Amino acid sequence: MVVKVYGPHCASAKRVLVCLIEKEIEFEVVPINVLEGEHKNPEYLKLQPFGSIPVIQDGDYTLYESRAIMRYYAEKYRSQGVELLGKTIEEKGLIEQWLEVEAQNYHPSAYNLTVHVLFPALLADNTPNPKVIEESEAKLVKVLDIYEERLSKSKYLAGDFFSLADISHLPFTDYIVKYMGKEYLIKDRKHVSAWWDDISSRPSWKKVLELYSPPI
Amino acid sequence: MVVKVYGPHCASAKRVLVCLIEKEIEFEVVPINVLEGEHKNPEYLKLQPFGSIPVIQDGDYTLYESRAIMRYYAEKYRSQGVELLGKTIEEKGLIEQWLEVEAQNYHPSAYNLTVHVLFPALLADNTPNPKVIEESEAKLVKVLDIYEERLSKSKYLAGDFFSLADISHLPFTDYIVKYMGKEYLIKDRKHVSAWWDDISSRPSWKKVLELYSPPI
Repeated sequence: MVVKVYGPHCASAKRVLVCLIEKEIEFEVVPINVLEGEHKNPEYLKLQPFGSIPVIQDGDYTLYESRAIMRYYAEKYRSQGVELLGKTIEEKGLIEQWLEVEAQNYHPSAYNLTVHVLFPALLADNTPNPKVIEESEAKLVKVLDIYEERLSKSKYLAGDFFSLADISHLPFTDYIVKYMGKEYLIKDRKHVSAWWDDISSRPSWKKVLELYSPPI
Repeated sequence: MVVKVYGPHCASAKRVLVCLIEKEIEFEVVPINVLEGEHKNPEYLKLQPFGSIPVIQDGDYTLYESRAIMRYYAEKYRSQGVELLGKTIEEKGLIEQWLEVEAQNYHPSAYNLTVHVLFPALLADNTPNPKVIEESEAKLVKVLDIYEERLSKSKYLAGDFFSLADISHLPFTDYIVKYMGKEYLIKDRKHVSAWWDDISSRPSWKKVLELYSPPI
């Protein structure tokens, strides 16, 4: 059964696409134009009631939330493609820890920057808020300082192995580095910069960007 | 080895404590007084560099982020105590989906309400913001309407089985129901209300509340 991924041009869906490529799982895509509000159409809301991207369909199984979908496929096809959940249950615990750090500490600020700097059309009043931009960047600086310390001790976030925790950072960090003029947030930190160069040069990520450019 | 849980009186740590009790895992606690800023002390930051509650120590293994810690123990002791990860990989996928819904859609609004209504001392300017309270409640109403629809079709969030996804909602919903005067958010929705009565009357949750009252 080929996995159907909705919204491939959106950042969150790209987490899922990288994961599927790393796990050598076949997929097809269904474009959803977020800037035209297609994620709020009744047909889409039947699949994803919160109106968020992405959702997948795999036969009669439907699943949403990008990090949940990644976990599902990384576990279901554990012995196929690249191992993304570590070798031991303790390594997996640390992957879960850094996935949560991404979701709770990194993502909210990266997302606010993305919307206010790049996609103000997605805001209710269509107007970027300089205070939100300033505060989000200040929060991200603090988070990245902790990442720098962590990545001075291990090659990847959860340890010396690539995992879902690293994948989860790719799409929004790509916006920060390439489209926002805020590359310095990454490049000014030696270990964060080396980590970013490593994970963003993986063939899986390059393929995702080549196939599904950001909606910009 | 007895698991050491830091910050048992804090809401996020209670997710971990319920999980440990459901899995019949022995633990001891180390109180952290958040209202006095003990989570920002250098000793604590060595364990949890972001200064968040909780963190656990299990021998020489240290782990933070409440949902990551729950996943670790629910998987490590899969055959002990109550099964919290479903029976099949598809059930587990849905548990992960609803854990993410809680983290991304439910928690931010529930947390903002908690801080602004109950603990303004935790805010930088020590002053609750009525606009944040109003917007957070409006967001939570929309989320709870989707929960109502979901819970009209299954007894618990991920299906007809209790799981980590339900546990994750306990601590902050308890604040909403008992301390904020906003019990109507739950009680006005027939299926959400029945679900809440069910999960909040589990002996594990009652024991956590009895042992570690909220810091209020």
